[in-house]
Amino acid sequence: MSLVSVGTVAFDAIETPFGKTDKIIGGACTYISLAASFFKKGAKIVSVVGEDFPQETLNMFNDKGINTEGLQVIEGGKTFFWSGKYHTDMNTRDTLDTQLNVLESFDPIVPESYQDFEYLMLGNLTPAVQLQVIERLNKKPKLIVLDTMNFWMEIALDDLKKVIAKVDVLTINDEEARLLSGEYSLVKAAEMILKMGPSTLIIKKGEHGAMLFQEGKIFYSPALPLEEVFDPTGAGDTFAGGFIGYLAASDDQSWEAMKRAIVIGSALASFTVEKFGIQRLLEITNEDIQARVEELSQLTDFTFQRTLENQNVI
Amino acid sequence: MSLVSVGTVAFDAIETPFGKTDKIIGGACTYISLAASFFKKGAKIVSVVGEDFPQETLNMFNDKGINTEGLQVIEGGKTFFWSGKYHTDMNTRDTLDTQLNVLESFDPIVPESYQDFEYLMLGNLTPAVQLQVIERLNKKPKLIVLDTMNFWMEIALDDLKKVIAKVDVLTINDEEARLLSGEYSLVKAAEMILKMGPSTLIIKKGEHGAMLFQEGKIFYSPALPLEEVFDPTGAGDTFAGGFIGYLAASDDQSWEAMKRAIVIGSALASFTVEKFGIQRLLEITNEDIQARVEELSQLTDFTFQRTLENQNVI
Repeated sequence: MSLVSVGTVAFDAIETPFGKTDKIIGGACTYISLAASFFKKGAKIVSVVGEDFPQETLNMFNDKGINTEGLQVIEGGKTFFWSGKYHTDMNTRDTLDTQLNVLESFDPIVPESYQDFEYLMLGNLTPAVQLQVIERLNKKPKLIVLDTMNFWMEIALDDLKKVIAKVDVLTINDEEARLLSGEYSLVKAAEMILKMGPSTLIIKKGEHGAMLFQEGKIFYSPALPLEEVFDPTGAGDTFAGGFIGYLAASDDQSWEAMKRAIVIGSALASFTVEKFGIQRLLEITNEDIQARVEELSQLTDFTFQRTLENQNVI
Repeated sequence: MSLVSVGTVAFDAIETPFGKTDKIIGGACTYISLAASFFKKGAKIVSVVGEDFPQETLNMFNDKGINTEGLQVIEGGKTFFWSGKYHTDMNTRDTLDTQLNVLESFDPIVPESYQDFEYLMLGNLTPAVQLQVIERLNKKPKLIVLDTMNFWMEIALDDLKKVIAKVDVLTINDEEARLLSGEYSLVKAAEMILKMGPSTLIIKKGEHGAMLFQEGKIFYSPALPLEEVFDPTGAGDTFAGGFIGYLAASDDQSWEAMKRAIVIGSALASFTVEKFGIQRLLEITNEDIQARVEELSQLTDFTFQRTLENQNVI
C-alpha cells in the first residue's frame, strides 16, 4: 500500500555532550521516509528544499526506493536549517538557530502520481500546512498519522486542534500530552486527547519507551536500554516512520498490528540515536532491525503460564 | 522458606496534591512485610518501635501471619516519625520533619527463633546497622536483598559500599544508580554497580517501571499505567517486599524467577500508591494481585511469531 510522508527535509547542526556536527542532513520527513524505506514500498515524500540541497542525498533517497517527485527544489532558495544543543541528560535541548528559508512559503502539493495513496504521515510542521494537506485529499486515506510538538500547542493551538480532529493517530511525547490535555496522569491525558478526534494516541517517552492508547486499551513498548544515547535528533520521527511504514506494508490498521508497529518503531529509533543524524539508518539492514525487535520482545517476556496459586506460592 | 525483613516501622505524616494525613502507620519494614504476607510464610520482622505504637497494628501484623517477635518495643520510647510533602509531579518530595526517636539506638537483634532463615530483606536503614545484621548471621542466607537511598550515598558511602559488597541483590532508583556509579546511562551504571558485589541489580523507575540486571542480561517490567497516583510513599518498599516474598515462597533464585518477581513487585506497588499509606495493601486479595500481574503481562505482550520477512513486509 502506498505511503505519503509530508514534513521537513532540512539541514541540522547538532551539539551533544559527545561532539558536534557542521550542517548535516536532517528533517522529520527525512527520518520518517528512511525508517519507512525498510518496508515494502517506502514513502513518497512531500517536502521542500533549496538549491543548496545536495544532489547526492536526493540520489540516496531514490536508491532507498523513496519517491522524491513531491520534493520541491526551490530555485535560488535555501534549505530549512535548525541548530540545537543537547543538555547532559539528553532529554532537553536548546535551539541555537532556526532559519525557515524555503519552508516559510511551503505549499504542500501532493503530485498527481501520488494520488489515491492509502497511508499518510504528517510529520511535525505548521498545523495550517498539515491541515491544507488533509483538505486537498482526493479521497480519505485508510490511515492518517500526525506528529506535532509543544511549540504548536503554544502558538497555534486552534489550528492544531482542527488537524487533530481529522487524523486517526496522534503521536506526541509525555510532556506534550500533559500540555495538550491539562492532565498530569498519562492515562487521563490519553482519555482526554482521544475525545479530540483521533482513535489512537501514541505517547513517546524517550528512554522510557512508548505507549499506545485506544478506547479502553493500553499497550506499552519499552525503549531498548542503550549503553549510550549519542544524538537523540530524529528518534521520534524514525519511530513514526517505522510505525506507519510497517502498517502500510502489512496494510493492517488493527490493534494487534499497531502493537507490533510501535515495537518496530522503537527498534528503529534505537539505531538512530547511536550516531549523529541519519548515519545509523544508512548502515543497518533488515536483519539488524529484526534482531532488535527480538531483543525488545525478550526484554519484557516473562513466563506466567500458571497462576500464582498453582505455583503454590500464595 | 523463611524470610526475615529488617527495616523501619514508623509513623508517617504525608501531604500530596490530593490531601494530607495525620500520623499514619509507615516504615519500610511495614510495607515490605505486608507485601510479602501475600505469599506463603510471610516475613519475620526485625525492627524497633516506641511505647506509642498501637497494639492494634501489632495485632494486624500477626493476623497477616507476620512474625513480630523481632520487633522491639522500647519502654518509654517514641516511634520513628517522618513527615513529607510531595510535589505536583509526585516524583519529588520535601522532607518536612524527621524524628529518629527509638531508631537512633536501634540494635538489630535477630531472635533465636528466626535463625537459619534463608531469605533476608534489608530495608532502607543506616548502612552500619545493615552491616551489623549481616555480620551477626549464623549462616549465610540463600539470598540477601538490600534497599538503600541517595541520603546514605551522600553521608555514609564507605559503609554503604561495605554492605553492597555483601549482598546478592541491590534495589535502588534511577537517580541513585547514576549517583552511585557516576554513569548517566543506566546500562553503564548497572555494569559498574554489578562490579561492586551484587550479582543482581534492580533499578526502580517509578511510573516508568523497573529494570532487572545480571551480567549480560536485562529484563524490564513496566509500571501499571494508573489514572492517578494518590500517594507514592512505600511503593519501593512494597515492590521489594513483593519481590523477595515471591522468591522466598517459590524458593527459587533463578533469573526466570526474578523476572516474575519484579513483575509481582510492580503489581503490588501499583496498589500501594492508590491510597494513603498501607490502606490499599490491607484491602486487596491474592486474586487482585493475580489480576494485575495479568494486566502487566498483557501490557507488553505482542505477537511476533513470524519474522518481518515472513510477514512479507520487508
